[in-house]
Amino acid sequence: MSMELVTGGAGFIGSHLVDALVERGLKVRVLDNYSSGKESFLAQHSSSEMVEIVKGDLLDSEVVISAMEGVATVHHLAANPDIRLGTEVTNTDLEQGTIATYNVLEAMRLTGVGRISFSSSSAVYGEAGQMPTPETYGPIMPISLYGASKLASEALITAWVGTFGAQGFIHRFANIVGPRGTHGVIFDFIHKLKSDPTRLEVLGDGKQEKSYMSAEDCVRSMIHIMDIDEGGANMYNLGTGDTCSVSRIAEIVVEESGLDDVSIEYTGGSRGWAGDVPKTYLDVSKLLQTGFEPTAASERAIRETAKALIGEIGL
Amino acid sequence: MSMELVTGGAGFIGSHLVDALVERGLKVRVLDNYSSGKESFLAQHSSSEMVEIVKGDLLDSEVVISAMEGVATVHHLAANPDIRLGTEVTNTDLEQGTIATYNVLEAMRLTGVGRISFSSSSAVYGEAGQMPTPETYGPIMPISLYGASKLASEALITAWVGTFGAQGFIHRFANIVGPRGTHGVIFDFIHKLKSDPTRLEVLGDGKQEKSYMSAEDCVRSMIHIMDIDEGGANMYNLGTGDTCSVSRIAEIVVEESGLDDVSIEYTGGSRGWAGDVPKTYLDVSKLLQTGFEPTAASERAIRETAKALIGEIGL
Repeated sequence: MSMELVTGGAGFIGSHLVDALVERGLKVRVLDNYSSGKESFLAQHSSSEMVEIVKGDLLDSEVVISAMEGVATVHHLAANPDIRLGTEVTNTDLEQGTIATYNVLEAMRLTGVGRISFSSSSAVYGEAGQMPTPETYGPIMPISLYGASKLASEALITAWVGTFGAQGFIHRFANIVGPRGTHGVIFDFIHKLKSDPTRLEVLGDGKQEKSYMSAEDCVRSMIHIMDIDEGGANMYNLGTGDTCSVSRIAEIVVEESGLDDVSIEYTGGSRGWAGDVPKTYLDVSKLLQTGFEPTAASERAIRETAKALIGEIGL
Repeated sequence: MSMELVTGGAGFIGSHLVDALVERGLKVRVLDNYSSGKESFLAQHSSSEMVEIVKGDLLDSEVVISAMEGVATVHHLAANPDIRLGTEVTNTDLEQGTIATYNVLEAMRLTGVGRISFSSSSAVYGEAGQMPTPETYGPIMPISLYGASKLASEALITAWVGTFGAQGFIHRFANIVGPRGTHGVIFDFIHKLKSDPTRLEVLGDGKQEKSYMSAEDCVRSMIHIMDIDEGGANMYNLGTGDTCSVSRIAEIVVEESGLDDVSIEYTGGSRGWAGDVPKTYLDVSKLLQTGFEPTAASERAIRETAKALIGEIGL
């Protein structure tokens, strides 16, 4: 029986993908360095023979090559999950994004694994001049180091497809939210409320507006696309077709926290930090035309995530 | 007096850029590892105080940082020039392209140099579904490792502009031809005729069709754009607005060789090698709207290059 390899499979979205692949009856190998992933995210599979866990780093080529044994498809999700980090540390996205993807592709080439599914990001679009933004939008000018590493990884994949004949699926994610989240605005808000239940500081003016998709819908759509699509390089925006503002997220988190009299305060400015894109709104017509339907729109995905993370983090 | 830094300044296009910058009265520092550049390409400046040459590698961060001293603008041209290499060696474009660009940008950030001009390539477009191809074309899916490294470098530049406030000029080159060429189809044809003056083997069916621009027009247009443009990240296709087929290039080279009875033979297939794009045709309206006019169309650029390279290589 062939094997699905999930890099970053102990991470937030990765562990949801492992759940979904196992639910389909597929054997899964996880390769994760636990830099942001957690053993507890895969605890539900600890007694299962369907999931094999390899602790290892994608920057170690030998580890990556040996993880390819028997693999039909590589689901490459491992990356630095913290977009903001690039404003202070510039080599993380290059190494854990671009170079790690190179190592994955090179290991695939050397071992004859021919199929890769990659978690890219709406961050590749930078400040797009067209909203909602379709996959055909150009020129693509990311403004964060994270977005740059995602675009670089996409380019490596299409080059490998074009030069060595692999098949590639590139998924440009909206903001993905859900249980086991380890970063992002909802996660940050809950931690802020935990340390001070009387006030919630919001980076920027709160008018930043983005698409939010539940992790469950996200991994379901990834698998759906790979089931129906053929050909070399495939690219899809994955999102819900709507947006939610950061100030609305703050309100939802406060509502779900059950706390009274929280003062929501804004640091001001159109973006949360340098490289933050004030508005992202993905055109997901191509995804919807495949027959896929998200179960939760942005607000619902946010509210359910707030509930789940408040349970995980505690308040 | 401030300094222009030209990485790859001893290379083919780099040395033409050095000539043009010096002609403008600017001081130039060249940083080159002479992997494909040649000392002879800068011999015309050997007694000049306007040109300083540093032999060093962009993968050596300390060298790059010290080369930034007093620099106003970095003209980043250093890269592996051989697109075909990526079909056999996969790490060259990653290292000499993507990582080298990262090192340049990081050195700029650390030393406060705020302006970069970058030689990208039509190879970023891969097999574009729109001809001529404008800068706004998407999705961008390079099919060569070279093209992937150019797109990755573009993304790093726009990310640095978006995050750290630099100014960037991204020039997507057509095929650039001219004296001092060290690679490419005209160069290859002359070397083939030199080793066997009776036959000329053409990779593919000869119907590959691309835009060719003279190196002189290329560097002139790079400087022209930087003179007129403002703002953060700027992107331009640089080309001539026409194309020439590989079979026509073979004919021109044979004509200029003065050889009789050369048999032109085709290996067949639509592309010269895996990752070769059969047709590239850049939309250069944006360039032309700036008032720039190329002096030579594709065929003329090719014929003049054939003359010059036959003189350099000998037959």
